Formats: sequence, C-alpha cells, structure tokens
Amino acid sequence: MAPEPSEPRTVVHVDPFKTEVGQKGLHNRWHPDIPAYCKVKQGEVFKVECHDWTGGQISNNDNSDDIQNVDLTRIHNLSGPIAVEDAQPGDVLVVDILDITPFPNMQWGYTGVFERTNGGGLFSNDFDSKAAKAIWDFEGVYAVSRHIPGVRFAGIPHPGLIGTAPSQELLDTWNKRERGLVAEYGDPTPAVALVPNAQGAYIGQDIPDDVRKRIHDEGARTIPGREHGGNVDIKNLSRGSRCYFPVYIDGANLSLGDLHFSQGDGELSFCGAIEMAGIATLKCSVIKDGIKKLGDLKQPIFLPSPIDPMYAQQIIFEGLSVDVHGDGKQYSMDATVAYKQAARNCMAYIRKLGYSKEQAHLLLSAAPIESHVAAIVDVPNACVTMGLPTAIFDRDILPTDDGIETRKYTNAALRSDGVRCKQD
Amino acid sequence: MAPEPSEPRTVVHVDPFKTEVGQKGLHNRWHPDIPAYCKVKQGEVFKVECHDWTGGQISNNDNSDDIQNVDLTRIHNLSGPIAVEDAQPGDVLVVDILDITPFPNMQWGYTGVFERTNGGGLFSNDFDSKAAKAIWDFEGVYAVSRHIPGVRFAGIPHPGLIGTAPSQELLDTWNKRERGLVAEYGDPTPAVALVPNAQGAYIGQDIPDDVRKRIHDEGARTIPGREHGGNVDIKNLSRGSRCYFPVYIDGANLSLGDLHFSQGDGELSFCGAIEMAGIATLKCSVIKDGIKKLGDLKQPIFLPSPIDPMYAQQIIFEGLSVDVHGDGKQYSMDATVAYKQAARNCMAYIRKLGYSKEQAHLLLSAAPIESHVAAIVDVPNACVTMGLPTAIFDRDILPTDDGIETRKYTNAALRSDGVRCKQD
Amino acid sequence: MAPEPSEPRTVVHVDPFKTEVGQKGLHNRWHPDIPAYCKVKQGEVFKVECHDWTGGQISNNDNSDDIQNVDLTRIHNLSGPIAVEDAQPGDVLVVDILDITPFPNMQWGYTGVFERTNGGGLFSNDFDSKAAKAIWDFEGVYAVSRHIPGVRFAGIPHPGLIGTAPSQELLDTWNKRERGLVAEYGDPTPAVALVPNAQGAYIGQDIPDDVRKRIHDEGARTIPGREHGGNVDIKNLSRGSRCYFPVYIDGANLSLGDLHFSQGDGELSFCGAIEMAGIATLKCSVIKDGIKKLGDLKQPIFLPSPIDPMYAQQIIFEGLSVDVHGDGKQYSMDATVAYKQAARNCMAYIRKLGYSKEQAHLLLSAAPIESHVAAIVDVPNACVTMGLPTAIFDRDILPTDDGIETRKYTNAALRSDGVRCKQD
Amino acid sequence: MAPEPSEPRTVVHVDPFKTEVGQKGLHNRWHPDIPAYCKVKQGEVFKVECHDWTGGQISNNDNSDDIQNVDLTRIHNLSGPIAVEDAQPGDVLVVDILDITPFPNMQWGYTGVFERTNGGGLFSNDFDSKAAKAIWDFEGVYAVSRHIPGVRFAGIPHPGLIGTAPSQELLDTWNKRERGLVAEYGDPTPAVALVPNAQGAYIGQDIPDDVRKRIHDEGARTIPGREHGGNVDIKNLSRGSRCYFPVYIDGANLSLGDLHFSQGDGELSFCGAIEMAGIATLKCSVIKDGIKKLGDLKQPIFLPSPIDPMYAQQIIFEGLSVDVHGDGKQYSMDATVAYKQAARNCMAYIRKLGYSKEQAHLLLSAAPIESHVAAIVDVPNACVTMGLPTAIFDRDILPTDDGIETRKYTNAALRSDGVRCKQD
Repeated sequence: MAPEPSEPRTVVHVDPFKTEVGQKGLHNRWHPDIPAYCKVKQGEVFKVECHDWTGGQISNNDNSDDIQNVDLTRIHNLSGPIAVEDAQPGDVLVVDILDITPFPNMQWGYTGVFERTNGGGLFSNDFDSKAAKAIWDFEGVYAVSRHIPGVRFAGIPHPGLIGTAPSQELLDTWNKRERGLVAEYGDPTPAVALVPNAQGAYIGQDIPDDVRKRIHDEGARTIPGREHGGNVDIKNLSRGSRCYFPVYIDGANLSLGDLHFSQGDGELSFCGAIEMAGIATLKCSVIKDGIKKLGDLKQPIFLPSPIDPMYAQQIIFEGLSVDVHGDGKQYSMDATVAYKQAARNCMAYIRKLGYSKEQAHLLLSAAPIESHVAAIVDVPNACVTMGLPTAIFDRDILPTDDGIETRKYTNAALRSDGVRCKQD
Repeated sequence: MAPEPSEPRTVVHVDPFKTEVGQKGLHNRWHPDIPAYCKVKQGEVFKVECHDWTGGQISNNDNSDDIQNVDLTRIHNLSGPIAVEDAQPGDVLVVDILDITPFPNMQWGYTGVFERTNGGGLFSNDFDSKAAKAIWDFEGVYAVSRHIPGVRFAGIPHPGLIGTAPSQELLDTWNKRERGLVAEYGDPTPAVALVPNAQGAYIGQDIPDDVRKRIHDEGARTIPGREHGGNVDIKNLSRGSRCYFPVYIDGANLSLGDLHFSQGDGELSFCGAIEMAGIATLKCSVIKDGIKKLGDLKQPIFLPSPIDPMYAQQIIFEGLSVDVHGDGKQYSMDATVAYKQAARNCMAYIRKLGYSKEQAHLLLSAAPIESHVAAIVDVPNACVTMGLPTAIFDRDILPTDDGIETRKYTNAALRSDGVRCKQD
Repeated sequence: MAPEPSEPRTVVHVDPFKTEVGQKGLHNRWHPDIPAYCKVKQGEVFKVECHDWTGGQISNNDNSDDIQNVDLTRIHNLSGPIAVEDAQPGDVLVVDILDITPFPNMQWGYTGVFERTNGGGLFSNDFDSKAAKAIWDFEGVYAVSRHIPGVRFAGIPHPGLIGTAPSQELLDTWNKRERGLVAEYGDPTPAVALVPNAQGAYIGQDIPDDVRKRIHDEGARTIPGREHGGNVDIKNLSRGSRCYFPVYIDGANLSLGDLHFSQGDGELSFCGAIEMAGIATLKCSVIKDGIKKLGDLKQPIFLPSPIDPMYAQQIIFEGLSVDVHGDGKQYSMDATVAYKQAARNCMAYIRKLGYSKEQAHLLLSAAPIESHVAAIVDVPNACVTMGLPTAIFDRDILPTDDGIETRKYTNAALRSDGVRCKQD
Repeated sequence: MAPEPSEPRTVVHVDPFKTEVGQKGLHNRWHPDIPAYCKVKQGEVFKVECHDWTGGQISNNDNSDDIQNVDLTRIHNLSGPIAVEDAQPGDVLVVDILDITPFPNMQWGYTGVFERTNGGGLFSNDFDSKAAKAIWDFEGVYAVSRHIPGVRFAGIPHPGLIGTAPSQELLDTWNKRERGLVAEYGDPTPAVALVPNAQGAYIGQDIPDDVRKRIHDEGARTIPGREHGGNVDIKNLSRGSRCYFPVYIDGANLSLGDLHFSQGDGELSFCGAIEMAGIATLKCSVIKDGIKKLGDLKQPIFLPSPIDPMYAQQIIFEGLSVDVHGDGKQYSMDATVAYKQAARNCMAYIRKLGYSKEQAHLLLSAAPIESHVAAIVDVPNACVTMGLPTAIFDRDILPTDDGIETRKYTNAALRSDGVRCKQD
C-alpha cells in the first residue's frame, strides 16, 4: 500500500507571469461591498496565491527603468476576499500564517528605490531619489543579489499586507481623515496621502456595474496600514506567526498580498522589502465576541514566529530628532526624524565598506535590520536605533583599530540613462 | 600559599545614601571646562560608582509624593569626567561596559510617572498624569515589585546616560538649536526643551568661581541624548556591550550615570526605567583618528551584549499615526504618534489582565518590552510595534477563546492625597 | 514585459508514491563504484528529490502494522551520487543546505517506534518495544499530529543522512571494524551492527552485473554515521546550514536522503524523527586541498542555520550513568546510560501530563528537544540533560504548587492486534 | 529623607583567602547527619558565600605546580547545609538561583588539567596528562586569560554542585553501588569511583566525635552528581535558573559550592570549568508532596535562565563511537567515546588556529561550548556534536578557501619542570 497524495486546497489561483487584469480573486481597493471570492472553514489549512504588489510590472534585469515608470495607481494586488465561516462583526479572526513561499518557478524578488516624483519614499526629498533596483535570487532560505555583492541573509517571508474588510462606517472614517490630511497639507511631492481614485482600481470579480463604480470611487487605497491591519509592513509577521484581527463585516473577508521575502524595519525605500509573488498557507479560526474579550481590541495583535533568524550580533547606530546629516535642525521629539538619522548613520557605515549610496539604501530596506524606538521622552530628542546584523556580510565588518576596510563592488541596477540620486 | 585579593580600582566613589551635594566626582551639566576628576589608562578595568539620577530624592516607600515633588533642575547626577590617556579630538573612544550592578546594600530601584506639571512624560497631557511609583526589589538578576504583583523579569542593567564631553563649539551648537526650539514652541507644559539653567547646577570639583559660573550658565542640560551620546536611554546598551564615542576634547572626558536595572523601549513615563544607584565596571581604549576611519562618525555606535534575556515569545501590538485612542486625528507619517498608539493598545491589554492604568504605564516603562519602527513609508501611516514578553508574567497571558482572565491586584504607589491621573 | 519563469534544475527525480524499485538516482548502500548519477557545477543551485527512508513502506493511517512489518534491509533510499566538478580526494566539499521541504502533494510524515525484534531502538529491550506510530500533518512550518494531541512545533527540516562516497580503503576499514564488533558481541536483539548484506540492496543505475554484485556484497549499510558524514541524524543540520565534507574519490559523489521534518536530539526511537519524503535545495563548492587546510579534517564540520526555532524556555531533566529507572545499576561514565535516564525522567513528566508511554516515546523522538552532555568527568557518573521546550504544548506545562494537571488524550497509532510495549 | 540600606542576609560566611580548615558552614561529604548550619524561610532572599572547590589550593600565577600537587581528598568545599522551613521528605524544594558572582576582591578563577596520576580527566590516559592551568581574569561579565590569548567570552556563572542531603537509605544505596563498581573495575588510574574516605573529610560544625567519625567513614564523596543533584556540573544551571530538588530529610538541608564562572558542556578536563570562589544569591520554597505531584520525581529538574549568552554562530564538530583519533577501534553506541571524538576534532581545529594542545584542552573545558547527543540509535555509532562559538575569538575563525590562519600565541601555565602531556 503506497502513500497517497495530500495537499491543502488553493482558494485563490494567480498567474504571476501575467498582469492582474482579467485575473479573478484579485482586488486593489478596500471596500465592504467587494464580495467574498471564496470561503473557508475554521481550522482548514488552505493556500492563497498572490501576485507581487505591482502586478508584474518589474522585471528581472539590470536597469531600473521599470521602477522609474511604475504605475502605482494599480497597487496593491490583493488576493481575496476570503470569507471565514461563522465570523461576524465583533468577533476576532485568528489567522495562522503557516507559510509564505515564492512560486517554485519564480525564484527571485526585487527591492526598489522610487523616483521622488513617482512613488517617493522616506528619503525621497533628501536624496532627490532616482530609480534604483536590486534583484534578489532566492537560494532556498537565503537571498543574494548580483546588485549588492557580498551579502547573503536568511529570509523572513511575510505578507506586507493582510487585513479584514472594513465596514462602511470604518471606510468612511478612513476616507474622511485622509482627505482631511490632504486638505491640510495640499499637494506636495511625494503625496502625504493617497485618497480614493478610480484610476487603476481593479476588482477581479463579477459584480454589477454600479457596485463596481462605487467601489472604484470610494474604495480606500491600500497603501497605509489601518485599524484592520492592511499594509502594516511588519517584518515580524513572518511565517509561523499568529494574528488576531478585528472583524467588521460578516465573513470577515480577509485579503492579503504584497508578499515580502525579507524586509528591514521601516522599509525605508517604500518599494523597500524584497518584493515577490508567492503562495501563502493559512489557517483561520474565530473568537466569538473577541473584540470585547481581548480588551476592546482596536487594532490587530499578533504572536511572532518562533523561527526568526538569530542575527544577534549587530552594529547599532543611533539617531536623534536633530537632522545632523542635513541642516542641523532641531525637531521636537520626532521619532521619524530620529529613525532617518539612525538610517543615515548606518548608510554612512555601509558606504565606507565600499557600497554605493543606492546600494546602502536598498540594503537597509531589504535586509533584516532592526530598528528600535529607544527613548521617546528625553526632550527634545527622541532616540531611535538601527541595528545592522554583521553575519549577513561575507566578511568581518566590525570596527578595528584600522577602521573599516573599503572594497570595490559592482553597483545596483540604475536608470538606463544614467541619472542618479544626489551623491552627497 | 593562599590566593590574594585583587580588585579593579574605583575611580569615582559615591555615597548613594546622601544627596549629591558635597560629593566629588559628580556633575549635572555638560561643559568642556569641567576638569577631569580622574584619569584611566587604555585597557585598564576600573569601577565608577554612580548616584541614582535624582541624587537620592526618591524613597523606598508606598506613596508617590517624592515623585510628585522631585526637583528636576538637579538631574542627572553624573560620575566623572574620566579622562582617558591618549584620547584626542578626532579619535574614537571605545568603552566596554563590562558590568553594571546596584550597590550591594541598596538592592532596589524605582519607576515613576511624573506629574504633568512637574516632569511630564510621553502621556503627560493625554492622561493628565499624576505622580505614581513602583518600587522594585532586586532579587539577583531579577526585579519584582510589590506595586506590580505577578511579574518578574531579568534585568538588562545599563547606563541610561553615558557620553564624552563636548567641545565648546559643539556645546554652542546644542544651546543654539535648543534655544531655537523653545523660541519656536514657547513655553508649553511639559517643556519642549530644557535650556541651560544655573539653578540646581552642580559641579563637584574645585574650580575657580568664574569657571563654575560659566559652566552653570552655559552648561548643557543632561536630559536629551546628543551627538556625544548622553542620555540616549537605550536599553540594549547593557552590561557586556561595547560603545564607540566620538572624542571632542583632550582626554575625551567620559561621564556616565542614570543607571537602569531595566527599561522598556521608549522609556515612556520619562522616570521610566528601573532607576537605581550602582556601580559600573568599564574599560576604555582609543582608535586614533577613529572618526574618519569609521566613515565620518557623527554619533556613537555600539555592539550589543551577547547576554540579552531571551524573551522571544511576545504579544505584539501595532500603532499607526492615527490617534485611535484619542480624537481619531490623522497625522502624517508621525512615528511618535504611532509609538503612542502601540503603547495604548498594549496598556489596554495589560489593564484587561487586571492591572490599573498607573501599573500599565509603569510596567511598559520598566519591563524589557521591544518597540520596533515597522514601516515608515506607507503614507500617511507610520507603523510602530510594541512587543510585550509573555514570560515576565507568572501566568499564561496569551489570548484564548475565552479572552483574557482578569485578576485582582493591589495597586501601584500613588499620591498620599489620592489624586490620580485621568481614568479613561 | 512580464517576468519570466526561473527555477533551479532538479538533478534527481523521485516518485514518492512508488517504492524505490525501478527508480533511477536511488541507492541504499555506500560504495566507491556506484557511478555518479548526475553532475553539478560549483556554485550551481540545484534540487534533489528524495524518497522517505523506507521507500514508501509507511502509510498515513491509524495503526502501526506497517511499522511492525517494515523491511529494513531496503533502507535508506538515498538520492545520488551527485558528482561535483573539480572535487578530488583531499579536497573539502562545501555543501549549502539551502532548503528542505516536503513534496507539495505529500504534506505529512511519521514517527515510529520499532518492534524490539524488527528494528529495535534505544529502549527496545527496556520497554520490550512493540510497533507504534504517529502521523504528523505539516501545516506550513508546523507539525501537528492527531496521534499526539495538544502539541504543535515548528520544523527544523534536515537530511538525516548526507555524505560523500568512501574510497575503497575507507570502505574496507568500515567493514572490517563493524564485522569485528559483530564478532565481539555475537548476535543480540537488536543487532549491534549491520554488516554488508546483498538482500535488499538497490542501485538504481545501469551498471555491469559484476559491479552490481560486488557493490551488493561489500557495500556498507547506511545505518550509522561514519567519517564521511552519512546517517549522523543531527537535527541542527537544518535548512540554512553549511557543511564541509572530506572528499575521498573524484567528484566527491554526494548522496543524501532520510529527510526529517523535525527530530529530537538522540532520535531515540530509531524511526525517530518526523520521517518524510521531500526536496532538498543545495549548492556545492570545493576547497582545494581542504582536508589539510582545515587541520587534517577527519570528519565533517558544519555551521548551523541562523533559523533555528527559539524554544528557549524548557524544562530540563537530568540523567546519570545509574539506571534509576531500571535495576539501579551503576555504570562507569557511560553517557549513553545517562542519556537514557534523562529521557526516562522526561517521559515520566510527559506521561504525568496525560500522554501514553508510546506517545512520550514518539514525542521525544520527533519534537525539537535538546540533549546536552553536561558533565563527563565526575566519576563514576556522566551527566546528560534533556530539555523539553514548553512552547510546543497548547497549555502551560510548568510545575506549580499543585503539581501538573493530567489530561485525557487519544492515543498514538498502535498495532491492530492491540499488543503494546511493557507498561511499567 | 534619604534612601536606606537594604541587603539580603548572608547565611554562610567564607574567607576565600584561607583554607577551609576552621571555617564553619563548610563540609565536603554528603551525609544525613550533618546538622543544618543555618535555616531560611520560604520566599526569603539570602546569600551564601562559597569557597572555590579546592579550598584555596590554586594560585593566580604562571605555572601549574599547584594543580599538579592538588589534594583531592579535601574537595569539594560545600557551603551549608541550609535547612528550609517546612521542607519534609516527599516534598520538592524549589531553589531560585538568583545570582552567582565572584567575591568583589577576588576577580579571577582558573581552569586546570590534572595529572593523569592525580585527578585524571576525560583525556587523562589518551594524552598522558600533565598539569596545566589557565588563570582567567573577570572583567565584569567577561572572562579573559593571559594563558589563552585572543579569546573573551561572557560568563554563565553557576554552582557546579548543588543538592539536598540524602536520607540514610539513599546514602547506603550510593555507597553500595559505587563500592560495587570499584569491586568490578579494580583500581585503575584514574579511579572509576571514589568511595568514602575519612582522609581529608571535613565538617565545619560542632558535632559529637562519634557522629563526626561516622560521617567521615561513610559520608559520600562529592565528586559525582547523584539523585539529589550534587556535582552535576550543568553549565545551564546558571544565574536566573530555577531548580526542583527531591527532599529526603526534614529541612531538605541544601548545600552548594564548586562555583563556576563558565563551563563548556562536558567539563572535559575535570578541573574544567572556570573554577572560582564567590557568592550565591538564592530563594527557596517548597512544593508539599511534590515528588508525587511532579510524576514521581527521581532526580532534579530545572528551568534554565532567560539570560544565556546568544553565541548562536558556531562551528560544529561531529564525533562517533569510533576512535578515529586513536587506534580506530569500533565501539557499540558509546556516547562517551563519541563525545571524546567530537572534542578531539574540535581541538584539532583550535590547534590549527595556533593554540597549544594544553590550551585547546583548557579552552573547551572553560568556554561555553555546546555538546549535543545528536543520534544514539544508528548502530553501531552514537553521534555527539560539539559546537565552538565563533564570537569568543577576537578574529574571524570560519573556514575559508585558504583554510585557517595559524597565529602564534603564548602558552598556558605549565609545570615548572617543563614536563608536558603527550604531544601527538
């Protein structure tokens, strides 16, 4: 008697070699009226295929023109919604992220730096960013890149984006407050928020035209994380973790996408993790009336995976809310500024190793760097740290009496016209 | 032949049972003209005794009146300056933090929440904070508190504050930019920055009166971390870590103090770690011309200790730059707001366990919670996480189908007049 | 322009739903004359499919009759030999174990306890072992078993068996010394060693009959680990690890198999890990003249993976070289006895939780328990410890003042005739 | 109001600069009739001073003559017995090892290799061991040695020896079985067991002469670990751990000593940890009828400390039960032989780095190396691993294409007559 095949069923199928258009079970806006594409039982192990966040706009090549010209109105391509039996508003949806893998026949991902004028990112104005890219090859649990030689690290695959569908009330709250922010800040580059925009909106299911139009017109963009989870881009939400989401509508309507093979805390270049298409393995259950039972849960909570790479040895950089890499301006307890300074200090070290500015930028976005809010009470300076794991380099990078050895490396993928970001 | 005594020399002696006044080797302002109190050789292991940051203002009792009435003009009591042989401007001072212990006959510390109007803290306005306190008893490597029953955790002893003396030029930069901030923000409660203030200033050494006056008048306050290190309050700067400081004046003139037995990332209540008096064991060396050799070092870097408690299992809370615990306001990529929301979500969980608002506040400040900047590019929402280690509780606190069990606990030390902070 | 498929090539294909017979690229004896089945380049990432160690003899059902009747002359089914370009005797073969996964359509594995009279195991005589089995379902990175309810743990997938081909000289050494052992000990049950045996021998390749006969007659059995690696059953040789093997013949001729989804230190039930069929992803390179360069390397060395589950909290049991669970006999510095006692102490605790003797036995073989040689000099007692990770249970198993709560669980898969091992 | 002194009481005082003779609260044999020296309450934090295991026979100098001439009849100097209120036979004594520190004025320890003919050790016959020594200086949490340059590691301070007093019945069992072993093996060098011996026996308390004589005559030697704990030399029993001991007599009568600043798994040179005098901080409580409640507890169990150094990156060596470093003999599933082979493989690597044979021997005994029983069922070869942490070296010791760089180091402390162990 021979063993028999057994495999979890796949509730959403995606072809990562085609754009999202025409593919079912994909959508790129949040709205309560997007009907569930499939339904799962509590306790059932199932698989969800996911497109990469751009829907295949980025290629495995050696220039960054595709990054430069990316169409961000079409992001993120999410798989779902997946209805879960018995889930009702007020409940908590427990989601076990059992595994996240790339497609077997697509063993690569990418990290990008966007143009200041098309996408932006944390350093977009500071650097006058121009498109740059690193292609990462997946070698089993590791990522390596011909565009950032000399580094290799274990992945922490996770969904950058996962969340339940909002109620109409919650959706309205989001749209109101984000439109308010745009009203307050005007229209800077890059934008302060992305409000509903029918252009590029995509719902892969058969729905009446009027419903589709309404979803296109008022569906929340998928860029930010919100109360339901969404695009929180938490690197520790990796395979093996367990999440607890508030449920707002019947069935909970879980969606996910924007898979990352790895990410650094902060995801600072925005296209910043190792972006990939791939397959999630999930299991769901429901805690009835869980929102109240868990202390009036306002946002998801989660338990991290026991399998986090043990990159304990790090070089840790500090950042304060003083722009020491820029004009020296003093900010008041601004942790965002402090994060940026820690990152700049870390980039300076990486560049001293011999890497280019673009490579330092890409590496911090992609590798499992750790950033802690160290102190946020010592007026006027918040302190944020950034820890660079030493074991990801193929050589000893610790400081010595002789300083740091500078080596020569080939560069990241740049624009084919050669235009680069500001070179300090 | 019997073994013989051997012990590192103590370069600063402190009596932690007396206030700082009259004690040598203590100072509470930063200034290049504070003369070195002692000198050490490269490679020499030495000890430095340190007062607690308030200079003994806080007692081991069961009310918070001493916290309410604390005199913050007198903080921080730093030990030093310690000159290191051969250190010169442009060098990097390597400091091994070999150990940090409490005084053998003072086996306790404290965590406080300050009054909104005397000291403040991150939630000072949100909570209309009133003084609260937890006394922690040190049981070897562990801390326990009669004011927060049911928790016990291993310490991560570290200096909240350690740094080299600034040059006059650097000091001037600090004073200018911080005075500028005060000019910009006016005089809110709590203050946005603390500029030089002769009141409470203390230099424990014999110096000419005019020098003393100048130091009192223009010496930088010790509250914030700055380019030289200082009060960065990084919990991972714990015993076993190695730090690299820029050197600005001859001898480097290292000072340290504000010892913590433990701290949570962010130190959110400001008096927020487990504050203690104690003894540091250090060793110093110099990397000649190190600032340049390490990539034009602008701020200290450090290597964390290999002995960090392995509290891997955590419940992780998310926070975004939307004030969901307050008025629902949408902020633009504000990591400070996101940190606050993550902390509020965590506090709600702790309160559901049965602890008071003050206890939740104190616990997050004192226990080794981890806060990461998860994502800081997904406009408009920065995402910050806060991880609560489960093993510090004497019971299983993971969510279950039944939610969380609420228990009864005695409360923290409060004001003797019974006035408490805003109770949601 | 759409992304294009990319995938490492698979150098050995296996159908895990058929027995080994007739499948190419499989062999179950070690011999220098087994020709390489395929050849890889240095630096090439490639895949190797592997049968489970019994070649599909064990089924996903609820009795242990297949374990009882297993034919062990046919084990292990190894994939290979894989020749590596440029590898020559005296070199060191560096093998990156990049990933180990089950077949997508075979998401389960098994742990068995063999009969004393057919297979044996460490406790075979102590327990008068009768066949028992646990089927494990793989839920992403986790394993769960309907036969051992209440536990779940992250896998540490690894090849139980991996090694280079021996030279004729080395093979002769093995055969001589193992035959000597059999001569010394006679023919106990279970056997002390398994010497060459043409019965069950299998070489999947086309080779002349006389060569095949010689290999069958003198090929070393695959049961023990030896100088070349082989069946070392080291749980930490998991995905992400890097190994260094001595090379004995041209091409190195690497073979591997006996994949484990997980294993406890010691693998005490012999069929003791979570056995599975699956796919290995590997990369090889060569250190020329490496045996000498690495200090006259006599056996493989390896670097463990950075992704080891962080099950830091454990209950640790001690064992000495005194048979306190049996007749009380005192042994002299016998670490094997000490290991057995630690295991018995651990099993007693697991049984107090409510599990059966068979379940305790199976669980220690399958879960990531840690066993250390603590002290091996304190005459006459070696001390070995066994650490049971607490987080693999779905409840708090730490000792309390009330002791340990005993629960009811359904049992492991047993023989269909109901015959069980000795029940203390 | 100033803070007030507070300090746990010290229940045993020891002068580590004098021999044990004349010091109260010390004893070096196990016997139920040794009266308790002091008594503690449940929940009380207290301190116990401990002599080093030899009672001050070893000096901080640069030859090993004191090791050569050590008097082992006098070991171990234990502090106690400490009676715990309410503890009765059948109970379980819970001991929190809250801290272990050296004496403040004795900041050093030692590792020794004994002579084959005076003390022995695991490799005593293989190496024809001659006395060697390394003095370790404690620099806060770290140990460094002028006798083994280029290494530094964080300590894991622990009592090598801790246990409850045996009942008369248990004592008789020990003596009978150990005398039986001696009868079986005769009188080899080194001895297989050390039976009661009045010579060197020491009980520091006032007791009637006839009782003293009986204790001297029948008191068990302290060398091996036994059912009550005792000299188990488990490196993970470090500060922060919690232990559960069976209680055999009223008051439990806890004794401890043989403090180690650090130790490698196995403690292979016998004088093998970093031996030190020092101070333990403890807290005890009692689980009534705990032996039965914890599943008929036969030996202590313990929970390891959360503060174990994170030396995750290791080079791991394998050992089998074949003496590949000696005569090539094949053993049957002998984990002791396998441990020895793993150690020999590791020593070969360390020697290739440039260290002497004595240094390699001492380092493995003293540094936090990890040894796992990997597989103990693959007849005829048990497999044991030994993991050498890379971060304890001041340089990168990973294998490269060029092999390993060999450096020159000054040697360990050797016999002043220059006689050394067998140099392969």
